[in-house]
Amino acid sequence: MIYEEIRISFEELKSQFKRVLLKERFIEEQAGLLSQVFAENNLSGKESHGLNRFPGFIDSVRKGFVKKNVEPEKISGLNAVEQWDGKSGAGPVNAILCTERAIELAKEFGLGCVALRNTNHWMCGGTYGWKAAEAGFALISWTNAIPLMPPWGSDEPKLGNNPLVIAIPREEGHIVLDIAMTQYSYGQLEMLKLRNNNTEFDAGFDSQGHLTKDPLEVIKTKRALPIGLWKGSGLSLVLDLLAAMLSGGNSAYQIGAQNVETNVSQIFIAFDISSPEIKEHALKIINGTIEDLHSSKQIDSSMIYYPGETSGRKRKEYLKDGIPLNPTQWKQLLEM
Amino acid sequence: MIYEEIRISFEELKSQFKRVLLKERFIEEQAGLLSQVFAENNLSGKESHGLNRFPGFIDSVRKGFVKKNVEPEKISGLNAVEQWDGKSGAGPVNAILCTERAIELAKEFGLGCVALRNTNHWMCGGTYGWKAAEAGFALISWTNAIPLMPPWGSDEPKLGNNPLVIAIPREEGHIVLDIAMTQYSYGQLEMLKLRNNNTEFDAGFDSQGHLTKDPLEVIKTKRALPIGLWKGSGLSLVLDLLAAMLSGGNSAYQIGAQNVETNVSQIFIAFDISSPEIKEHALKIINGTIEDLHSSKQIDSSMIYYPGETSGRKRKEYLKDGIPLNPTQWKQLLEM
Repeated sequence: MIYEEIRISFEELKSQFKRVLLKERFIEEQAGLLSQVFAENNLSGKESHGLNRFPGFIDSVRKGFVKKNVEPEKISGLNAVEQWDGKSGAGPVNAILCTERAIELAKEFGLGCVALRNTNHWMCGGTYGWKAAEAGFALISWTNAIPLMPPWGSDEPKLGNNPLVIAIPREEGHIVLDIAMTQYSYGQLEMLKLRNNNTEFDAGFDSQGHLTKDPLEVIKTKRALPIGLWKGSGLSLVLDLLAAMLSGGNSAYQIGAQNVETNVSQIFIAFDISSPEIKEHALKIINGTIEDLHSSKQIDSSMIYYPGETSGRKRKEYLKDGIPLNPTQWKQLLEM
Repeated sequence: MIYEEIRISFEELKSQFKRVLLKERFIEEQAGLLSQVFAENNLSGKESHGLNRFPGFIDSVRKGFVKKNVEPEKISGLNAVEQWDGKSGAGPVNAILCTERAIELAKEFGLGCVALRNTNHWMCGGTYGWKAAEAGFALISWTNAIPLMPPWGSDEPKLGNNPLVIAIPREEGHIVLDIAMTQYSYGQLEMLKLRNNNTEFDAGFDSQGHLTKDPLEVIKTKRALPIGLWKGSGLSLVLDLLAAMLSGGNSAYQIGAQNVETNVSQIFIAFDISSPEIKEHALKIINGTIEDLHSSKQIDSSMIYYPGETSGRKRKEYLKDGIPLNPTQWKQLLEM
C-alpha cells in the first residue's frame, strides 16, 4: 500500500456500490448482484477488480459498451451444453447467472456446460469459482479477451490473457485457482512502474529481445511473457477457440478488431460431486492432498498455499475487521 | 540427433511393436491398439514416448505394474459423467477406450466426461486429442502422475507434471495442445545433460536457490520450474484433485506413497461440435484465428505455429518418407 489505508465494512462498501448503481438506473436485482460482486472482490483481496475498477465499469455503462438491465438469453441447447447470449450486458450479472445455470445442468446431467457469447468483462474470475464452490459444485471456467500478448515467436499481440478458473469445494476453505495467461498483468506492471519497482521474475522481452524484469520495457514492447512461455501461448489460443466455438461468439481476433473489449465469450462447466460414489472419496483425497501440501518443506520460511487459501483468509479477516481501501478511491465513490 | 538416423515405415514399425506384444502374450486386440499408439507417437515426432519408451513399457508389464489384457470397467455413472476402473491395465488401451466412451457420451448429452482410475502411463497425451479430433470432437483431458515437482515455495517434490491436452478438430490439421506442468521434463533435462547443453530458458532452481538453465543442477535439486511459476504449481494441484475426486482414484500423494508410478487417475471430456448452431460458426472462427496467428509478425524469422501444427506436418512427412529412428533402438526392437 502506498497510502494510509482506511477500513470499511463489507456491508457499507456494498451499499455504496449499490447506491451508485441505482442512481445509474440499474434495476434493484442487477444493482444488488453487481454491488455484491464488486464488494466481494475487495473482500477477497482482489483490489484490482473491486473499488479500483468500479468507476471504469460505470464509464463503460455510460458509453454504452455495457448494457444496463439486460439478462442473458438461452439460444440453443443440446442436453448438458447450452449456448447463451449475454446481449452485451454487465459481465458479472451474465457470469453469475450462467454459473447458476451450469450448476442446474450439472444437477441434471452430472456435469453441465454453459457457453456464453456477447458478454462483458467478468472482473475477477475467481468470483464464479467461489460461487460454484459455495453451492458444493466443482467448476472449470474461462473467458477470452482482447489481444494483448504475442504468440510465442512473435512480437505482435494476438492472444488474450484469458483467465482460467478451476474451483473445488472444501468445507475448511474452497480451493479456487484463477490464473491469467500472462505471467504478470499489465495492471500489475503499471503499478510497479509507478513505484519504480521491477517484477520478481521475468515479465517479458525488452526492445533487444532479451528477457526483462523492467515493467516499463514490457509496457513499451508489448511482449508480456505467457505463463510457461510457448505453453501458455498455446493454452491461450485453445481456450479462446473453445470459448468462441461453443458459444457461437467472438474469438480474440474479432474482439481485437472492435478496438474495445466487449462482446467476449465465456465457458462455465460445473461438476456435480455430491453423489455417494464421489463425495466420501473426494473428502478424503482433498484433505490428504492439502495436508501433504502444507507439510512441504518450506524454503525461505515462506508458507506453502493452495490456490484460494490467501483469499479465503482475507475474506474472514476483512469481514471481521473491515476491508482496507484506498481513501482517495473511497472518497470518490462517496461522491459518485 | 546424435546418431545417424535410419528411416522405417510406419507400418513396419507398428508391425514390429505388435510382434513383440504378441510374444509377450497380449491378445490380438490389445497388441493392435498398443502398437498403433506407440508407432503413432513416433509418427508425430514424439520420440520420447514411442520406440524410446517401448522397452520400459514391456518391462512394466513383466514386473506386473501394467496388467496385460484387462479392460476398463464402468463403476458408476450419472448421465454425462461416468467413473471407470482401469484395473491397472495398459495406459494407452484404457485411455483410448475412455476417449471413445467420452465421445459416445458427448453424442448423447452434448458433452461427456469419463473419469478413469487405476490406470497406467498413457505415454503421449496428444494421442487422445488426435483420436477425438479425428472423430470430429473437441477434447479436454488430463492425467495425474507421481510427484516430481515442488509446490511454489518448497523444494520438496509433491506435485505431478500432470499433462493437460486440449484438442480442436480442423480439416486442414487438428489443433492439439499437450502441455506438462513442468517447463522442461526430466527426460529433456537428461538428454541435454548427456550432450552438455543447457536449456534455452530457465529450467529450475540450483542449490543456492537461483534460477538456472543447467540441467544437472535441476536434476540434483529436484526443483524443476512449473509453467508460469506459482500458477503452474496451482494448476497441477487442482488437475490432480479433480482427476482423483471424479474418478474415485489416487491423488498424487497416494501415487507417491507407492514409490512407483501406477494406478494414476485421468479425465476425458469430449464436446460434440457437430450441431448446426456450433459447426458453421466454429469453422469460420477457427480458420480466422489460425490465419490471424500465421500472419503474426515474426521475430528471428521463426515460424509461428498453432499447437499440434509441427506434429501434423511430421505425420504427413514421415508417412511418406519413413520415420527417423535411432538405429541402436531399432536393432534392440528387432531383437526383442
